[in-house]
Amino acid sequence: MNEDLIKKLDELERSLYVFRHLSSLVELDAMTAAPQDSTSGRSVVTEYLSKERYGLFASDRTGELLEQLTEQKANLPERIARQAEFLKRDYDRMKAIPQEEYVQYDVLVSEAQNVWVKAKRDNDFASFGPYLEKIVETQLRFIDYWDPKHEKKPYDVLLNEYEYGLTEEFLDDFFAHLKQTIVPLVRTISEKGWQPRSDFLHREAPLEKQRVLSDYLMEALTIDRAHCSIGETEHPFTLEFNRDDVRITTHYYLNEVMSSFYSVMHEGGHALYELHTGDELRFTSLASGASSSIHESISRFFENIIGRSRGFCDFILPKMKELFPEQFADVSEEEYYRAVNIARPSLIRTESDELTYCLHVMVRYEIEKGLIKGEIKVGDLPRIWQEKMKEYLGVDVPNDTKGVLQDSHWSGGAFGYFPTYALGNAYGAQMCERMRQDVDVDSCCVKGDLAPIVEWLTEHVFRYGCLIDPAPLFEQYCGAKFTPEPYCRYLKKKYSEIYGL
Amino acid sequence: MNEDLIKKLDELERSLYVFRHLSSLVELDAMTAAPQDSTSGRSVVTEYLSKERYGLFASDRTGELLEQLTEQKANLPERIARQAEFLKRDYDRMKAIPQEEYVQYDVLVSEAQNVWVKAKRDNDFASFGPYLEKIVETQLRFIDYWDPKHEKKPYDVLLNEYEYGLTEEFLDDFFAHLKQTIVPLVRTISEKGWQPRSDFLHREAPLEKQRVLSDYLMEALTIDRAHCSIGETEHPFTLEFNRDDVRITTHYYLNEVMSSFYSVMHEGGHALYELHTGDELRFTSLASGASSSIHESISRFFENIIGRSRGFCDFILPKMKELFPEQFADVSEEEYYRAVNIARPSLIRTESDELTYCLHVMVRYEIEKGLIKGEIKVGDLPRIWQEKMKEYLGVDVPNDTKGVLQDSHWSGGAFGYFPTYALGNAYGAQMCERMRQDVDVDSCCVKGDLAPIVEWLTEHVFRYGCLIDPAPLFEQYCGAKFTPEPYCRYLKKKYSEIYGL
Repeated sequence: MNEDLIKKLDELERSLYVFRHLSSLVELDAMTAAPQDSTSGRSVVTEYLSKERYGLFASDRTGELLEQLTEQKANLPERIARQAEFLKRDYDRMKAIPQEEYVQYDVLVSEAQNVWVKAKRDNDFASFGPYLEKIVETQLRFIDYWDPKHEKKPYDVLLNEYEYGLTEEFLDDFFAHLKQTIVPLVRTISEKGWQPRSDFLHREAPLEKQRVLSDYLMEALTIDRAHCSIGETEHPFTLEFNRDDVRITTHYYLNEVMSSFYSVMHEGGHALYELHTGDELRFTSLASGASSSIHESISRFFENIIGRSRGFCDFILPKMKELFPEQFADVSEEEYYRAVNIARPSLIRTESDELTYCLHVMVRYEIEKGLIKGEIKVGDLPRIWQEKMKEYLGVDVPNDTKGVLQDSHWSGGAFGYFPTYALGNAYGAQMCERMRQDVDVDSCCVKGDLAPIVEWLTEHVFRYGCLIDPAPLFEQYCGAKFTPEPYCRYLKKKYSEIYGL
Repeated sequence: MNEDLIKKLDELERSLYVFRHLSSLVELDAMTAAPQDSTSGRSVVTEYLSKERYGLFASDRTGELLEQLTEQKANLPERIARQAEFLKRDYDRMKAIPQEEYVQYDVLVSEAQNVWVKAKRDNDFASFGPYLEKIVETQLRFIDYWDPKHEKKPYDVLLNEYEYGLTEEFLDDFFAHLKQTIVPLVRTISEKGWQPRSDFLHREAPLEKQRVLSDYLMEALTIDRAHCSIGETEHPFTLEFNRDDVRITTHYYLNEVMSSFYSVMHEGGHALYELHTGDELRFTSLASGASSSIHESISRFFENIIGRSRGFCDFILPKMKELFPEQFADVSEEEYYRAVNIARPSLIRTESDELTYCLHVMVRYEIEKGLIKGEIKVGDLPRIWQEKMKEYLGVDVPNDTKGVLQDSHWSGGAFGYFPTYALGNAYGAQMCERMRQDVDVDSCCVKGDLAPIVEWLTEHVFRYGCLIDPAPLFEQYCGAKFTPEPYCRYLKKKYSEIYGL
């Protein structure tokens, strides 16, 4: 009996894998190889996939299977029971939405992303606004479907999709904590009025050499290139198909060699996670990172805690001098380390420094809350964005391309995703404190030998995939509940040293 | 009643479009962005798509629909009737194969292509041989399914897939004709012992400039880049999704600027065809070129008859001098024209010149016939390849990478495709003679204004898609039955002039 159920579950999982694979492929293609005005075919395909996936997954057949598996839970292997539990959540979310609305939304989002690309290019928020309005409307309707008795705050219902169990209340408290640490630090640095030398970071660095640098960093990250390719896109990202097949992308700028450097470190972190999920999870819904925050905790860890550490900087500088002699010949270790750690309020989240990064997230967090509560209208977004950027970062936003249009998330309907970036930063710092009990992290950095770190992460984090929910998983590998304190300590110590505060 | 049938046909066509789109995407991804060892997920997806496509298309429901449409033929709009007729052929071919074998074959071919890539890289025919044996075995079994009463020659059954109605008898006669023209020409040139100067074609040409050249050629070809992107792959190809979305690829070699030049002209020709199929055919099975030969007649026409014409060479040389001053500064119009038209037997089909190209095809044609008749064993292919290359082209094949492993076609099960390349060359020459009655082709070339040529082709060829079978379509736009004479005349005239014979 149970064998039969497990076989049916396997079949369902494989089919769902196929839909994930194909949807990712359509998305990847749209962002990389597809010509600009090629949406007509993609819309037909998106609609078909959406309909078929709904028909397969939100069917009575699947409902019954998941029901039976839930009943048999005690008699099933742990992994199987978890798959059933995990799928049941997705099933409930999908089933709650009528098929037609589900498909319409998928098509809307696919179109909206295309409109956003052009709106950003042309600094034309007005053309994107109506799509964003429709997306927000749909999200509000979905919240009603998902929580018909209004037992949760509406925004919590969305947060839940990216971090199971995450709430607005928790985040309000978290961000208040961060604010208390970051805002005074930023102010003190600003008042001091001194910045380290960084001219050399903006010297021309030949693209071909930057590509060689990417290969070198991937090797330092211990990434097996036979299973992970690097592409080039406007916005870097990671896309996982399965543990044998992960793609990252980066963007090379002639005068910004560190831009691609840290993109590769960041996306490489995401890739490592996916490449080391447990083999027994392959082609199941558990074969991915535990949540967005945990994923970001890994990518931001490799980008910043490792990649911007004094040790790793000392390790990599000779390579930089070798690849880019004209740029780095006259640069000392101290100068290099300080330059890649400059804290200075800026306009673009993805290019912001480690210290001010979370302030960018706070702007988005508050706007999302306002949109979902109905306190902010889509049409007011450009103005509110400008006001909040001035308030939190003290910068003037010159246009919407560098303002409210800069990120793709909302065009994809991802409300509730941004906070996981900030949370990830803090998760990573606490995780690193725990890791240091087992691994000499500083020594790994200086030697450029990150293998012990990747092994620790595989053992304690990666291999679990989604077997355990994010909060308990975090507690398991950190040996303590989450608190923002380690992250605040880390920031204070690092920036006080760099800026001699 | 008929409206209902047409609606069902539309739905079927859209679903089939989705499968074509997705399969193409999987294939494109494997050839471009996917990491080397990422087949596991792709196999799952390939198997699923194959099974679903079979389930949808080779179903009783589809059979009945096509039956009803055939009965109603006289009462249906012409296009609808043609769609039904066209789909019925595919349906019969698919239905004849048991589902399991159909799916197994798709998976086999997907794996074989991966094995071929590595075998070619490592000059290791032995690893590829067993896959090729299985593919040939399966093709022989399929031939039995398709022609159970053995009414046709086995090879004709395969040819039919690429060129409806094409036969071995026809091709034997065709190739005999070509041989009579080409072999003496090649011999005379060889005996004369003189070759034009061509050193400048192999000077270093910066890749970035070569990319600019590609853009310039695409513009000269009147290709709308918003609907056609250029990628970079080991082997150039064209992949069409729909008339809004066509991709071509090329390969840049530092010391072979003309390699990418003519790849873009060739693939650009294929792209033009797809971009100009009739709008009313969009997302139907008729929305593509009429056959492989007709398609090749267009791509080879733009590559050779246009791209290697004296007029187009005179037009493009100033641009070449502008982009690559160090390479072309000392080159005269006459020198340039002769250099890009050098005829010299060589090892690689895709890099061979216009005159010896068909000899490469003949080698493959004879081997395919032998394989299908069972007169040639897969294990003997490397030796037979060497013998035939010596016989037809007089060259010694140093290894299998530059020999029997050079082309991907057989790894994809495409037996019967190669002859369409040669046929395409000849179709193109006859088509051009007819075109000259309406368009001043030479003047278009000299001015670099190919729009009148593209317009003529759209009006007479492109817009029909698959509305008309290749042979009658050809007769319609050429106003005469096909004969190899125009092609033979063209070759004799061109090479006699260039080599002063």
